[in-house]
Amino acid sequence: MVLIGILLSLLLSVSDSLYIQSVQTFQYVGQKEKPLAVAFNAILSKDTTLGSKEVVKYDSVLTNVGGAYRPSTGIFTAPYKGIYTISCSLMSHPSNSVHLDIMKNGKKLSIVYSASGTNPHSAQTQQLLLNKGDRVWIQNRSGNKASLHDHGSYNLFSGALITKV
Amino acid sequence: MVLIGILLSLLLSVSDSLYIQSVQTFQYVGQKEKPLAVAFNAILSKDTTLGSKEVVKYDSVLTNVGGAYRPSTGIFTAPYKGIYTISCSLMSHPSNSVHLDIMKNGKKLSIVYSASGTNPHSAQTQQLLLNKGDRVWIQNRSGNKASLHDHGSYNLFSGALITKV
Amino acid sequence: MVLIGILLSLLLSVSDSLYIQSVQTFQYVGQKEKPLAVAFNAILSKDTTLGSKEVVKYDSVLTNVGGAYRPSTGIFTAPYKGIYTISCSLMSHPSNSVHLDIMKNGKKLSIVYSASGTNPHSAQTQQLLLNKGDRVWIQNRSGNKASLHDHGSYNLFSGALITKV
Repeated sequence: MVLIGILLSLLLSVSDSLYIQSVQTFQYVGQKEKPLAVAFNAILSKDTTLGSKEVVKYDSVLTNVGGAYRPSTGIFTAPYKGIYTISCSLMSHPSNSVHLDIMKNGKKLSIVYSASGTNPHSAQTQQLLLNKGDRVWIQNRSGNKASLHDHGSYNLFSGALITKV
Repeated sequence: MVLIGILLSLLLSVSDSLYIQSVQTFQYVGQKEKPLAVAFNAILSKDTTLGSKEVVKYDSVLTNVGGAYRPSTGIFTAPYKGIYTISCSLMSHPSNSVHLDIMKNGKKLSIVYSASGTNPHSAQTQQLLLNKGDRVWIQNRSGNKASLHDHGSYNLFSGALITKV
Repeated sequence: MVLIGILLSLLLSVSDSLYIQSVQTFQYVGQKEKPLAVAFNAILSKDTTLGSKEVVKYDSVLTNVGGAYRPSTGIFTAPYKGIYTISCSLMSHPSNSVHLDIMKNGKKLSIVYSASGTNPHSAQTQQLLLNKGDRVWIQNRSGNKASLHDHGSYNLFSGALITKV
């Protein structure tokens, strides 16, 4: 009878651990059901003159799921390591040509350009692997002033998390 | 012996519920394996003149996974709440400049512009949080006619579901 | 006592199979945790003259998660069936206008255009359903030479897997 008692206790403890494992699995799968959504989309609300190397503060925020874009600084900070798509559209003021740098943590990734005179509407879309905390922004490439033409329409900075890695 | 009988019955019923839970977990994980895919990509097949505020009916459909873009109306209707990427490329006919509005449920989100004379090829990519049933389309911003230059090549309206939320 | 022994053996074997199932479930969920990440992003490092119908070999690779873009050929090969976003930005050398074809398995999907004289910075973003092994690249549309202006900044070919299907 003592042996049976020990066996039953063993079985119960195995069953317990099984139950706990199952519950954990459910919770784990449950977490997967809440997808990680990060997306932002911001436009310039008006004609904007940038100073030397100044960051563009896209102030009219259409989308900011996850709150990772800050319009007061113009900077997007990746909340997770992952693949992100990042886009920039540019329209210069006819009075000048404009080069904008797409920046990551202080290093230039690429340049978007819009000539003077005819309001060329330029664009670039990048796919980036960002670490948690990496920062992406757009800034005036020039050491001189640069003027952009807008009224909540043309100059856009957007991005989204495609895959968490 | 009665006590042992009760204990054994308890163990068996716990084991049963564990088995059912495990099977359910498998089914649940199995459902995750069928990803929700929504993507469309449509181009203008020829030179197209839009009337006042007319919606652009991109008629040459390269991609329409999920069937949420309707070429007969030019309207994309979100089949799920989620983060969507939406892109528009524009080339005006040299005879005129063209402003196109990117629209969501009748409200302008932004504008894509292409000047007259030199076929500027403009673009914009947005990241949007759309509710199920939200509608996105591209339309002539002007109250006058607007002509686009194409032959299945330049003017594009595309989008995809990035994350269901 | 023999009956109890048999019952206990049965219980133990049921518990064993439950344990194995739980472990498998964990492994399965664990596999889901390793997301399929495919993303590339490449730019031209310098002014580049393309021959007739020549493929553009974007040589400055900023992103190549999954290694599916080959800078020596300029070709992206889809490693999985799925929805992919593909983008191209173009800047012609002022000495000529340039038409670039976005190609899939040898067929033109669309064209990106940049006029001569003023460095128009053009772009297009497509959403494509690709089968495993499908190949996407950018090539000179013309039978004559075509010159692009760059210094690691303007001409970009990028893409990412949005959803495996």
